[in-house]
Amino acid sequence: MLDKFFNPKSVAIIGASHDEDKPGRVIFENFVNGKYDGKVYAVNKDTTPIMGNDVYQNVGDIEDKVDMAVVVTPSSTVPDILEECAKSEINNIVIVSSGFSEIGVNGKELEECCKKIISENDLNVIGPNCLGVYDSSSGVDTMFLSQDRLVRPGEGDIAFISQSGAVGSSVLDWLSEHGIGISKFVSYGNAVDINESDLFEYLLEDDDTRVIVSYLEGINCDGKDFVNIVKGVTSKKPIIMLKAGKTDKGSEAVASHTGSLAGSSRVYSAAFKQSGVLEAQNWTELFDYAKALSYQPLPKGDNLLIITDGGGFGVLATDEADRLGLKLPEPSDAMKDSLRDKMPNYVSLKNPMDLTGDATSGRYQLAIEHGLKEFDGIVLILIFQIPTLERDVVSKVIDISKKSKKPIICCSAGGNFSNELIDELERNGIPTYSTPEMAVKAFDIMRRYSDIMGE
Amino acid sequence: MLDKFFNPKSVAIIGASHDEDKPGRVIFENFVNGKYDGKVYAVNKDTTPIMGNDVYQNVGDIEDKVDMAVVVTPSSTVPDILEECAKSEINNIVIVSSGFSEIGVNGKELEECCKKIISENDLNVIGPNCLGVYDSSSGVDTMFLSQDRLVRPGEGDIAFISQSGAVGSSVLDWLSEHGIGISKFVSYGNAVDINESDLFEYLLEDDDTRVIVSYLEGINCDGKDFVNIVKGVTSKKPIIMLKAGKTDKGSEAVASHTGSLAGSSRVYSAAFKQSGVLEAQNWTELFDYAKALSYQPLPKGDNLLIITDGGGFGVLATDEADRLGLKLPEPSDAMKDSLRDKMPNYVSLKNPMDLTGDATSGRYQLAIEHGLKEFDGIVLILIFQIPTLERDVVSKVIDISKKSKKPIICCSAGGNFSNELIDELERNGIPTYSTPEMAVKAFDIMRRYSDIMGE
Repeated sequence: MLDKFFNPKSVAIIGASHDEDKPGRVIFENFVNGKYDGKVYAVNKDTTPIMGNDVYQNVGDIEDKVDMAVVVTPSSTVPDILEECAKSEINNIVIVSSGFSEIGVNGKELEECCKKIISENDLNVIGPNCLGVYDSSSGVDTMFLSQDRLVRPGEGDIAFISQSGAVGSSVLDWLSEHGIGISKFVSYGNAVDINESDLFEYLLEDDDTRVIVSYLEGINCDGKDFVNIVKGVTSKKPIIMLKAGKTDKGSEAVASHTGSLAGSSRVYSAAFKQSGVLEAQNWTELFDYAKALSYQPLPKGDNLLIITDGGGFGVLATDEADRLGLKLPEPSDAMKDSLRDKMPNYVSLKNPMDLTGDATSGRYQLAIEHGLKEFDGIVLILIFQIPTLERDVVSKVIDISKKSKKPIICCSAGGNFSNELIDELERNGIPTYSTPEMAVKAFDIMRRYSDIMGE
Repeated sequence: MLDKFFNPKSVAIIGASHDEDKPGRVIFENFVNGKYDGKVYAVNKDTTPIMGNDVYQNVGDIEDKVDMAVVVTPSSTVPDILEECAKSEINNIVIVSSGFSEIGVNGKELEECCKKIISENDLNVIGPNCLGVYDSSSGVDTMFLSQDRLVRPGEGDIAFISQSGAVGSSVLDWLSEHGIGISKFVSYGNAVDINESDLFEYLLEDDDTRVIVSYLEGINCDGKDFVNIVKGVTSKKPIIMLKAGKTDKGSEAVASHTGSLAGSSRVYSAAFKQSGVLEAQNWTELFDYAKALSYQPLPKGDNLLIITDGGGFGVLATDEADRLGLKLPEPSDAMKDSLRDKMPNYVSLKNPMDLTGDATSGRYQLAIEHGLKEFDGIVLILIFQIPTLERDVVSKVIDISKKSKKPIICCSAGGNFSNELIDELERNGIPTYSTPEMAVKAFDIMRRYSDIMGE
């Protein structure tokens, strides 16, 4: 049912505009000029052709079947448009327009009126006051922000659900810049009909999605329903969430932003814990975690090996592991003996394993191959600035990782030389972080999710 | 006295090498080919010229006065070299060579032997087992890592003191990439003579340094002395510190890395608090904080105004402000009245002030100018993806900030379009962060440092 939002065979843009700068024009162009290969119909009271395309005065005038309508007209016109869609059996509608409950009493009335029509006609509606839907595979793109300012991310298996359009827009643009792909994005705004739980349920069945990431201000359904639905999802796919409005002041700010009740931090944290949601502390962490869960296999336990060529980063990683209660056992005597024969005597074969500042790719290869045999996962620190470390350490790590069923997480930072190698790691499924702390946190979230799935 | 490490008129590279890949060659080239304009002498037992430069067999053979020696020879040769330097009245020496206490008992003995010579001859020594010194202004650069892999940062007023060379090398390279300049960098390794406190004391008097950033594993002097010295520094210049080895496991890792006693987390946090040190949770935070303290004036109080064009980021900023105990009072009625006349009625004039998704640069200018009159500082969220926001919002913010004695901190994130504008903000002294949380934390650290200075 929701699938028509992501894979419609035909789309009507109601409010497609003749004015190049208008939202209704940007959206129309997204469909006409972009990857989307279904039929696209422009609807506008002024039926002058737009970019050579016929324009229909009403959605009812379109003779073919329309799978999805996108509404980009002034809010006052929306109730009538919903009625028209219902009459034409267009059941999936994205209302991009703003001017509803978020602007106060008058808007609230208008929103209630829409709700009544939606419920009477059994429509599926995303919005209003939202960016709507972006699907990297089908090319559906209802975002009214121009591609000059918001570059769309490529394909990937992370789905991103955002209550806020503005947060969504900055994040999507940032994801493109960082080469992180997504499967689907939905900004659902005032959630007059379809809410976060509906979307989570849909994504559970979506083959293109492996990890779900969500920015949430308030829950738009019953708390118990939320916990039950979400628990059903997280037992199969991870949901990582950033909850805004967790403090008293933040909760007030949510009320004045979307009108949602943000609720108390304690209630939410309890609900998230019960339902197996993984919480992030800020939006970059959302995707730091998502990368690890999307790219690498889950660990089966919490025995972590830290391998480094810089003692300092090894210490910082150890601190973080200790804070999170991860185990850092020393390698077995057998492993130490085997490595001792092949490494200089100043290499420290404890945990963290310090290959030191004259490490080579061969030394890394040995350490990783041995480590994967007896640890549940590896945090690999690569300081590429040292002169002895050959570039082929990257291909070696990638090859080992592709054959392994245990996670390898990297930490590396620097300028051009390092960034080229970091990009290569990431393109090949090795999540790489600037700080040792985040690399260890990423391993920890995988371990926690492994526990949640096992419950 | 320490000044000769940063502004020597003449330098001897003891162990300058004929082999292009050797550390002693990289360092020699740094001085000969770089910005440094003093005299450079190569010292090597093989007196074949290096890159057309004369080579001296012993440092004593150099007839001119030598202000600083850099030692890059095998560790066993270092005691004799120190004696020679003492005889030639070269009192400032950087020992880059490793192979001392960090490798065990034998190295420890060698280090004790060096200590004795240093103390008997009243030498000033940085190292051993370190990268040494980089001065962005004088061009002193004793780092043996090639510029291909480690791009040196430009000038700035942040000094960076790192016990670990590896951490230092990744961070410096990253700073260059991010356009963050530094005044001086010192990696002091085993701290056989000069330690962190000596360097802090020196930097207190250094006109090129406004903010001090430090990565520390263990204190290399008496704890009480540390607190007293550091307190004297932080009353005039901020010190931001990342302490590694704060957990039990991390402390063990420090012992096996540098042999320092890391000490307990509680003792350190107490010492840092007493001495006015600002603590960071990871190395990126070190420079997130340093940027704010380096670029902007300190706030005089904790009344913060948050201005945004995206409600979601405003809520997240509010959450962080509440967690940190910052005040977010509403604007006065007078301010609201004045703005109400000039803004659309759906703009929220509370705190956070939400200029909404059709904000313009004019709206931002009004909000900031009014805000600076009655708040102690502003966290400015700029979502550049929205179509109405003109590019000139950046020059407007810069102009206002240059005339203001109150801090403006930005939050913005995205791809190419945004990054160009973010770069412009940063180049003009407006610290800009990807997450609203970090922007608020940066304001908070400034407020905390303002309190420390006032004590």
